[in-house]
Amino acid sequence: MPLIRRPQPKQAASRSFEPSRSRVSSLDRLIFFSDGVHAIAITLLVLPITVPRVAEGDLGRALADNWREYFAYGLSFVVIGFYWLLHHRVFNFIVREDRVLVRLNLLLLACIAFLPFPTAVLGEYGSNWAAVSAYAASIAATGLVWSALWWWASSGRRLIDDTLTDGEIRSRQVDGILTPIVFAASIPVAQIDPGAAEIMWLALIPLGAAVQRYYARDSRG
Amino acid sequence: MPLIRRPQPKQAASRSFEPSRSRVSSLDRLIFFSDGVHAIAITLLVLPITVPRVAEGDLGRALADNWREYFAYGLSFVVIGFYWLLHHRVFNFIVREDRVLVRLNLLLLACIAFLPFPTAVLGEYGSNWAAVSAYAASIAATGLVWSALWWWASSGRRLIDDTLTDGEIRSRQVDGILTPIVFAASIPVAQIDPGAAEIMWLALIPLGAAVQRYYARDSRG
Amino acid sequence: MPLIRRPQPKQAASRSFEPSRSRVSSLDRLIFFSDGVHAIAITLLVLPITVPRVAEGDLGRALADNWREYFAYGLSFVVIGFYWLLHHRVFNFIVREDRVLVRLNLLLLACIAFLPFPTAVLGEYGSNWAAVSAYAASIAATGLVWSALWWWASSGRRLIDDTLTDGEIRSRQVDGILTPIVFAASIPVAQIDPGAAEIMWLALIPLGAAVQRYYARDSRG
Amino acid sequence: MPLIRRPQPKQAASRSFEPSRSRVSSLDRLIFFSDGVHAIAITLLVLPITVPRVAEGDLGRALADNWREYFAYGLSFVVIGFYWLLHHRVFNFIVREDRVLVRLNLLLLACIAFLPFPTAVLGEYGSNWAAVSAYAASIAATGLVWSALWWWASSGRRLIDDTLTDGEIRSRQVDGILTPIVFAASIPVAQIDPGAAEIMWLALIPLGAAVQRYYARDSRG
Repeated sequence: MPLIRRPQPKQAASRSFEPSRSRVSSLDRLIFFSDGVHAIAITLLVLPITVPRVAEGDLGRALADNWREYFAYGLSFVVIGFYWLLHHRVFNFIVREDRVLVRLNLLLLACIAFLPFPTAVLGEYGSNWAAVSAYAASIAATGLVWSALWWWASSGRRLIDDTLTDGEIRSRQVDGILTPIVFAASIPVAQIDPGAAEIMWLALIPLGAAVQRYYARDSRG
Repeated sequence: MPLIRRPQPKQAASRSFEPSRSRVSSLDRLIFFSDGVHAIAITLLVLPITVPRVAEGDLGRALADNWREYFAYGLSFVVIGFYWLLHHRVFNFIVREDRVLVRLNLLLLACIAFLPFPTAVLGEYGSNWAAVSAYAASIAATGLVWSALWWWASSGRRLIDDTLTDGEIRSRQVDGILTPIVFAASIPVAQIDPGAAEIMWLALIPLGAAVQRYYARDSRG
Repeated sequence: MPLIRRPQPKQAASRSFEPSRSRVSSLDRLIFFSDGVHAIAITLLVLPITVPRVAEGDLGRALADNWREYFAYGLSFVVIGFYWLLHHRVFNFIVREDRVLVRLNLLLLACIAFLPFPTAVLGEYGSNWAAVSAYAASIAATGLVWSALWWWASSGRRLIDDTLTDGEIRSRQVDGILTPIVFAASIPVAQIDPGAAEIMWLALIPLGAAVQRYYARDSRG
Repeated sequence: MPLIRRPQPKQAASRSFEPSRSRVSSLDRLIFFSDGVHAIAITLLVLPITVPRVAEGDLGRALADNWREYFAYGLSFVVIGFYWLLHHRVFNFIVREDRVLVRLNLLLLACIAFLPFPTAVLGEYGSNWAAVSAYAASIAATGLVWSALWWWASSGRRLIDDTLTDGEIRSRQVDGILTPIVFAASIPVAQIDPGAAEIMWLALIPLGAAVQRYYARDSRG
């Protein structure tokens, strides 16, 4: 009955009935808000791609020369998409919130929502060491906050349920620290050879495989 | 009872009760996220429309001269709206997710979220062959990813339920490949006559009719 | 039981169980998408407000001179907020969707999502007749689409339930046409005196009162 | 049964069944819309951070010189995050809506959605008195609207349930007025010493502690 929205004038005035009380739990609002920030950040990635201002005849070449911006767009789309999938997965196991989780989640969102900026720098400057380092640092910071969030939620099963075994919890703690390590390690490399640092990021592919293993585990129960 | 959000301190500490566990399914989060990206991308289409910088007296004419940007806005609004409707329809039949679906869906969103860029190029350069080709290529890519997604979900009824007959599944597979074919075919045409390529896009109208047929089928059961 | 998201590996493979089927109805997705577009458009209104580029000492005055942009922001916030409230109200009575409703709703969203552009023009040019006319035309178009949507949904109770009396339906049809009439009528006025046209928009206040009457009616049942 | 979305052709035509009626309550739509505006505003904060246009070799230094923009981003992220948490908390207790609440909430959202602008000014001009004052005034206005909203909802338990004691309601009324007072008081200080005004904002930390106390109270029941 509370699923029906039709106005119920008499009961609505009485306090024992709550026809309009929200049925969205606090944890659901946290998840919706996080999904929203991920969705907006991932969609804003397109904004810094610049429309070339050239003579009509040169537009084709100018669009092709833009390739660094498309690469940065694609890379950051994969990164934010990967973190969204991780959020999606991890919050499947979280059954309670506390104020540390809420704050770590906000800090995580601050990192995610910041990514369009280093992406724009990378798209503009390409294999410049400062651009590559700024990008790697942003993603390493995001990964560190993720690890902290998962560590907080999972250690001693503080906020998670019994679905996962202890071994699975530990293995996810290890997996989660991989991204920040790879990206942090690429910063000194970028001082010497920015292209080599970008190649290190291809470590995203084994990380993608790690996410695949997450899914595989879930389907096995 | 789990519909009531009122804090229940004692049970909350016990692990057998889950008063704050999210009730949003994984597939629902996928759908919300996709709706969010579509909604954001469609609303960002307005941002590249430039406020003219002219003398006060010339504003009327300058706003009218902007018509190419309004046309590009309207066209991309129809395109993203069409793809959102398709998402809306197709996910009505999807009852399970797997990791391929999740990734194809992210790839699709990357295409949708990219559309404001070729739209801005088209609005700026109009019937330039490079602008027309870039726009057509973006939409053809989006349509190809859609076809892949539907093919993956529907072949062998991998992720869909029994609502659709085999004939309906096949007919949707054919419908879905129409948009990318029309837009891909318009690319070589644009090399010769960009205006003719834009006229080909009026093939959107029969495609709209195809969506109508989708709805008609649904109402017949 | 379907409210619990815990993976249920064996049943998930069987077709008769649907543990992950979305529970979001098609009409709900339409409403979420519409809420999303309204929320994004209303938040994008801030983007065209320009950060002054002046000497440090002149910043205070430059910020104050920006008042036209703040006025345009506030005005459009009220307008989009008003239309969102109307959407909120009207979709309370809509119990079915059809493809005309879906398309009229998309057309409405195209109007709403376009509003940041005329707002930016108005903020930049102020009481210029072309800026005032473009703004008024955009809002008149939005209002016309709204009237069409409500007329379609309500005539012959095509898509609405029995909550409203025939008199209430007609009175809402009249109310809905008020905004486009006021804004359309302000366009010729703006050719002569743009300030007078803006004063006509204060007709928003009686319109606000009309929304109040909507609420009053609902609370009476 | 209404949880199943499968098309039910015959009943759909009959008026006594409502297979597609939305199950989202009016208060839930208000909350979703508010979450959306908070999420968008917090994510738009990144847009004004400017990609430096310098020689390749100077990029590292130019990115470092950008620190005021990162500071403004972080500060406003904390502020909007704080207000979102407050919304999250307060709407836990609100069980009814009325038109004053809906309008105060819209006014609040207008304040929140405006924050990216003073943030951009602060990021661009830093410790300029006008920039600091504009920022403080925006946040003070946001806080005042919040206080009005909470006062309206809670006085005489107009829109809230019985979960809170009278003492808790009053203590939240006091807490809520703290932010606007601190920020308003920093405006005259900024005329003399803008840096001192920014230090006053560190009063955000005790405010954060106040939110902690909110949570502590909830967990005690």
